[in-house]
Amino acid sequence: MERTVSPLYAAIDLGSNSFHMWIVRDIAGTVQTLAKIKRKVRLAAGLNSNNELSLDAMQRGWDCLSLFAERLQDIPAANIRIVGTAALRTAVNANAFLSKAEKILGYPIQIIPGEEEARIIYQGVAHTSGGCGKRLVVDIGGASTEVIIGEGFDASALTSLKIGCVTWLERYFKDRALTAANFDTAITAAKAAISPIVEQYQTLGWTTCVGASGTVQALQEIMLAQGMDEIITLAKLKRMQRQAMQYERLEDLDIEGLTLERALVFPSGLSILIAIFESLGIESMTLAGGALREGMVYDMMTQMRHHDVRERTLASLQNRFQLDTGHAAEVTGTALNLLDACQSAWQLEPQARYLLKACAGLHEIGTMVEFKKSGEHAAYLIHHSDLPGFTRAQKHLIGELLRRYREQLSSLPEQHALSAPSATRLLRLLRLAVILCHRRDHCHQPPFTLDVTDNKLSLTLPASWLAANPLTDAELQQEANRQSDMGWPLTLIASE
Amino acid sequence: MERTVSPLYAAIDLGSNSFHMWIVRDIAGTVQTLAKIKRKVRLAAGLNSNNELSLDAMQRGWDCLSLFAERLQDIPAANIRIVGTAALRTAVNANAFLSKAEKILGYPIQIIPGEEEARIIYQGVAHTSGGCGKRLVVDIGGASTEVIIGEGFDASALTSLKIGCVTWLERYFKDRALTAANFDTAITAAKAAISPIVEQYQTLGWTTCVGASGTVQALQEIMLAQGMDEIITLAKLKRMQRQAMQYERLEDLDIEGLTLERALVFPSGLSILIAIFESLGIESMTLAGGALREGMVYDMMTQMRHHDVRERTLASLQNRFQLDTGHAAEVTGTALNLLDACQSAWQLEPQARYLLKACAGLHEIGTMVEFKKSGEHAAYLIHHSDLPGFTRAQKHLIGELLRRYREQLSSLPEQHALSAPSATRLLRLLRLAVILCHRRDHCHQPPFTLDVTDNKLSLTLPASWLAANPLTDAELQQEANRQSDMGWPLTLIASE
Repeated sequence: MERTVSPLYAAIDLGSNSFHMWIVRDIAGTVQTLAKIKRKVRLAAGLNSNNELSLDAMQRGWDCLSLFAERLQDIPAANIRIVGTAALRTAVNANAFLSKAEKILGYPIQIIPGEEEARIIYQGVAHTSGGCGKRLVVDIGGASTEVIIGEGFDASALTSLKIGCVTWLERYFKDRALTAANFDTAITAAKAAISPIVEQYQTLGWTTCVGASGTVQALQEIMLAQGMDEIITLAKLKRMQRQAMQYERLEDLDIEGLTLERALVFPSGLSILIAIFESLGIESMTLAGGALREGMVYDMMTQMRHHDVRERTLASLQNRFQLDTGHAAEVTGTALNLLDACQSAWQLEPQARYLLKACAGLHEIGTMVEFKKSGEHAAYLIHHSDLPGFTRAQKHLIGELLRRYREQLSSLPEQHALSAPSATRLLRLLRLAVILCHRRDHCHQPPFTLDVTDNKLSLTLPASWLAANPLTDAELQQEANRQSDMGWPLTLIASE
Repeated sequence: MERTVSPLYAAIDLGSNSFHMWIVRDIAGTVQTLAKIKRKVRLAAGLNSNNELSLDAMQRGWDCLSLFAERLQDIPAANIRIVGTAALRTAVNANAFLSKAEKILGYPIQIIPGEEEARIIYQGVAHTSGGCGKRLVVDIGGASTEVIIGEGFDASALTSLKIGCVTWLERYFKDRALTAANFDTAITAAKAAISPIVEQYQTLGWTTCVGASGTVQALQEIMLAQGMDEIITLAKLKRMQRQAMQYERLEDLDIEGLTLERALVFPSGLSILIAIFESLGIESMTLAGGALREGMVYDMMTQMRHHDVRERTLASLQNRFQLDTGHAAEVTGTALNLLDACQSAWQLEPQARYLLKACAGLHEIGTMVEFKKSGEHAAYLIHHSDLPGFTRAQKHLIGELLRRYREQLSSLPEQHALSAPSATRLLRLLRLAVILCHRRDHCHQPPFTLDVTDNKLSLTLPASWLAANPLTDAELQQEANRQSDMGWPLTLIASE
């Protein structure tokens, strides 16, 4: 058996709270995780008032690194990157820690400046998030917060602020009381730290805003658990603050969807996020697909640079699941033609186009598991796979559309990627496109026209073409019945 | 985007009861279904007492074929095979049907003799079933039953008997009464039809027996629904007969697990199967993974011949899911070494070895969906994928072992592929092998020895090796705790 050649990469991040090692390989343009190891080293907690790291804290770090070292031995040196962040930037005796740490690891460690950390985080976001236009990125760490504006893969403003959820916890929630006073002081202090960059950032401006880090992740989990959509707004942050203030002390916090692990730094992180929203005037934020470690890995995988992230995701999934890309392209072309025919009547949201494109490009993904329940398998695979460039809500909708791409029809469940009527309309177009391309041959695509009046679709095909293709005719007729039975009128017309 | 080149194949089977079209492609050595179309044409019901096909029946056939024809146009002629079986063999006016049918399809139709049907069925079974030694194959159709003995890909006895579940229904259950008298007459008549081949087949002998066709499929579904294992025995067949006889008439039949579609021909098929079991002295039978249509397709895909079916299945899944075959081979080697160390103490069943090999070869299959829940994904993928060469119970056990191949440990559910202690022992060895190969580098496999006393395992490694590999050391220690906590004692020993 031939050995699959796919080199390993390792990214190690010596953070202020935890050390992380992430081992991945590049598989068909996708970063596949092979191991994730995390140890709570609490380096920052070992800094005294003179910013000296205690020997105890250093020892915890060295112990952790000797575990990491074992796994590093079998990875090419060029594919390893190890960085230290805020706690090591701050420690006056960082060199004492480093010299032994490098000996243990056998590889150099870079203590990166805040701006470099911001640059790498931006790469991690750019490679894992879709959207066009200028992008504001916020990453709240344990001892620093990075704020970046960029477009595509290029950052135009990089800032690392000395505020973090661990330092703000120690400074403003030291008594562990969830009082309005504590929140106010924490928010005010964070605003003061942000103030120097407000004017520059507001002048640059942005069209989308994404947040990385545990605080934003925790917010998403709470919002999902409480049945909200995935868009973070100032109103929701204030609601979270009110929820938190219903408890007296930090250790009593019991908000639905908030895990124990994240609870301790949740109020301090929330305070910083509220300060950032208010200072910069952010309207809404979504969760980024990656940050520092992702940026480190994508930086090493140079061949992945400068492609549209969503296109790369689709191509990679098609490759990994060995889909018939020619057929996928035919269905995509047909689906987009159908969409164009409806667009002026239906006025679908801009993202509808690339969601339909994703569904058409991936519609056969479930057949690689098994034909019979391929819709269900597609939903399963999409639900559990990483889809850089698509938000969680978009991923959910793609999965639910693919669950219904053929055979029996059923209503879509609640989703937050599109309005409900738009989502249903995409489903109708997707199913039609799949049937129209059943012959899997671009030379024999039917010369159809689609007319739209409100919710009514009329698909017209030449009578001679239908007579020559009786199976497609029967399938289209069945589909017209199925859609009409759902209350989505579809008529098949044979023209002379 | 480059178009994935993978030619399509079509197999059309004009059966006595239904016409089937199956469109597939060859993807990495696996047959992937792209379309399955079936129409109940009921050709046999259109035969009169002079064996003339009625014009109505022919018209039903032609209508169906004009649907199939559309899809055939885009498939290379060399990849299309169309066969007619018993009803067309019997019809004295088959040529009248054929000449128009071939015009509609644009391709020749072969009315195949019973022996050729038996040969193709055997190929379908051989390509989809594991096991070694001589194999007895029984396929009960609507109007004929094929009985074959073969080994590997070569059949040594091919018989087509003129008994079938549709003809037996019309002949012996025409009054639709589920009486002992009807069953007795049906069984006796079937035995008379089988009697000429009994001596030849018993002389040839066999080591395993598999059944294809709807009757055996229906039996499996009933047995599963009623919580039995997957082995069909005469005792179970008799029990089914008693269950059926609790109902007065065929249309009242309400056996748990029996679908409406299969109920009509179930008593007649059961009678034939009982007759075959008793006449040939069959001890047990399992369900084949394929039959006529699979044989037609594999016959066309000549490159697939003459490989071990299970090996081909593993290699194909590794290829389709882009697994690291080098690493898979290391884990397999380690797992089999561990097995060898335990074999004299544990006396595992012979199939334990290839089940462990399958698990080791596929253990990373879930990571191609996502790392975090890779065990669950592995179980999902194995459960829903076709695994030629493995029985349903073996597939289930492989999935459940892979669900637990790393991280938290839990007991295996009920399964029927191995004894419960053996299955647990495979799980223990699999998990150890995965940890021992964590470095993904065959040059650094630890020089372990494994000692066994009853259920107690002692894994010995050089102290110097453990010191040099502290992460593996920690993981092995954690695994020793996890297995011991389950009541499966495992001790890690550091030797000097």
